[in-house]
Amino acid sequence: MYSYKHKIKYYETDKMGITHHSNYIRFMEEARTDFLCFHGFDYAKLEEMGIISPVVSVQCKYKATTTYPDEIEIFVTVGEVRAAKIQFDYLMKKADGTVCIEASSEHCFLTTDGKIARLKKDFPDFYEAMQKLAENK
Amino acid sequence: MYSYKHKIKYYETDKMGITHHSNYIRFMEEARTDFLCFHGFDYAKLEEMGIISPVVSVQCKYKATTTYPDEIEIFVTVGEVRAAKIQFDYLMKKADGTVCIEASSEHCFLTTDGKIARLKKDFPDFYEAMQKLAENK
Amino acid sequence: MYSYKHKIKYYETDKMGITHHSNYIRFMEEARTDFLCFHGFDYAKLEEMGIISPVVSVQCKYKATTTYPDEIEIFVTVGEVRAAKIQFDYLMKKADGTVCIEASSEHCFLTTDGKIARLKKDFPDFYEAMQKLAENK
Amino acid sequence: MYSYKHKIKYYETDKMGITHHSNYIRFMEEARTDFLCFHGFDYAKLEEMGIISPVVSVQCKYKATTTYPDEIEIFVTVGEVRAAKIQFDYLMKKADGTVCIEASSEHCFLTTDGKIARLKKDFPDFYEAMQKLAENK
Repeated sequence: MYSYKHKIKYYETDKMGITHHSNYIRFMEEARTDFLCFHGFDYAKLEEMGIISPVVSVQCKYKATTTYPDEIEIFVTVGEVRAAKIQFDYLMKKADGTVCIEASSEHCFLTTDGKIARLKKDFPDFYEAMQKLAENK
Repeated sequence: MYSYKHKIKYYETDKMGITHHSNYIRFMEEARTDFLCFHGFDYAKLEEMGIISPVVSVQCKYKATTTYPDEIEIFVTVGEVRAAKIQFDYLMKKADGTVCIEASSEHCFLTTDGKIARLKKDFPDFYEAMQKLAENK
Repeated sequence: MYSYKHKIKYYETDKMGITHHSNYIRFMEEARTDFLCFHGFDYAKLEEMGIISPVVSVQCKYKATTTYPDEIEIFVTVGEVRAAKIQFDYLMKKADGTVCIEASSEHCFLTTDGKIARLKKDFPDFYEAMQKLAENK
Repeated sequence: MYSYKHKIKYYETDKMGITHHSNYIRFMEEARTDFLCFHGFDYAKLEEMGIISPVVSVQCKYKATTTYPDEIEIFVTVGEVRAAKIQFDYLMKKADGTVCIEASSEHCFLTTDGKIARLKKDFPDFYEAMQKLAENK
């Protein structure tokens, strides 16, 4: 099963001695773009084509703390595929298997003229691939 | 009504030309600690006393984008006060009054011996003040 | 004398308990853009006009540490104005007057067609203003 | 020859479309701690032993820009070993071999009682290893 690894950096910690909670939102992005690239959708190429994908919402539950130099493993799944919005789910685990983060994010997609894309019509290949990933998770 | 202002920094933008979505989680922290300080609870002093307050969860809805050099106004309210957990709610507005962010965060509190505090018993002054703020919002 | 103030944020600290050293490079940018705006050169407007200003070099000496919730005062001066490059100098002080940072940065400017600007010819108003600030510091 | 790789993250870019210049200071830290670990000096373990190593100065020359999703290769060398201070040098290259960054940083070391360490006396193994790395670069 696909997973993405992130090694906590010293500069990602705060004076509480743990990884600052805002950074996990960044790790979600890292893992999501890597996951999409793994499935044939390179975000950098999509962006060159003029397609951009703003984040609509995030939610994140902090189950256990991490710190430098922990390595965390991030499992990404496609949660729900709707007409104009996709939800990704994230599970992050520490090396010992402890779940540290449960999270999700929603994204819409803009076409090159800045309008919100109808995924099925505007990006049929992407829509179908995400549908399959949502079913097979 | 109390509000906190944050001027978007150039380094808070990303190549999409907008404020990176992870930064709003940081602005929530800025606004929350300022809000608590305004109401007599200086987080730096609490921390010196050995009280730390980990974030249990965050959620954030992105309603409109912002960018450098926008100034955003952040309204913080106490959402819910429970035995061991407090929820804060956030509304962020752009200069023209557009709501850009609706968000909330949950926090627990640890006593100096690292145990999860029962707010009413362990920090009665703080508990009562938060209760009042929750009622009067 | 002009100065810019930055209040250290919790998320700018690291597990050593102090402001992470990389953040001062960001404070330099904050102070520099504010300083230029104060002198009539709004960086956001320059950028809208297609003028961009990459950083050529930075150097930073860490003389004393700071931490949340210190407020630091940043003094910016124009160090040297050359044909295609400007140097800014920075002195950062803590509330008690202690110098915490001595730094400088060099910047070039690109014209709208992406070429390195000759400041005197391409941006004469800006060149002259910077010259004056360099002399009067 | 030892090198460290960093893949530029989307959140490390700014609205100029390039990696924000402050981030390279963070990549230097990543590469330096990895380099030291590679040579048997795990910074996390040193810190657990109470040894901390503040940054005394950094300097960084920006020779070429990078952006998401570039991968950069970072070469770290020990520049100079003095009684109480070590300088590290950094060369960062893009995938096509272009040098994007030339940088250096100076570090002192504090003993567990908070005093500046005399490296030869206080950490003889570390001192000797760094000396050798400085000679063989």
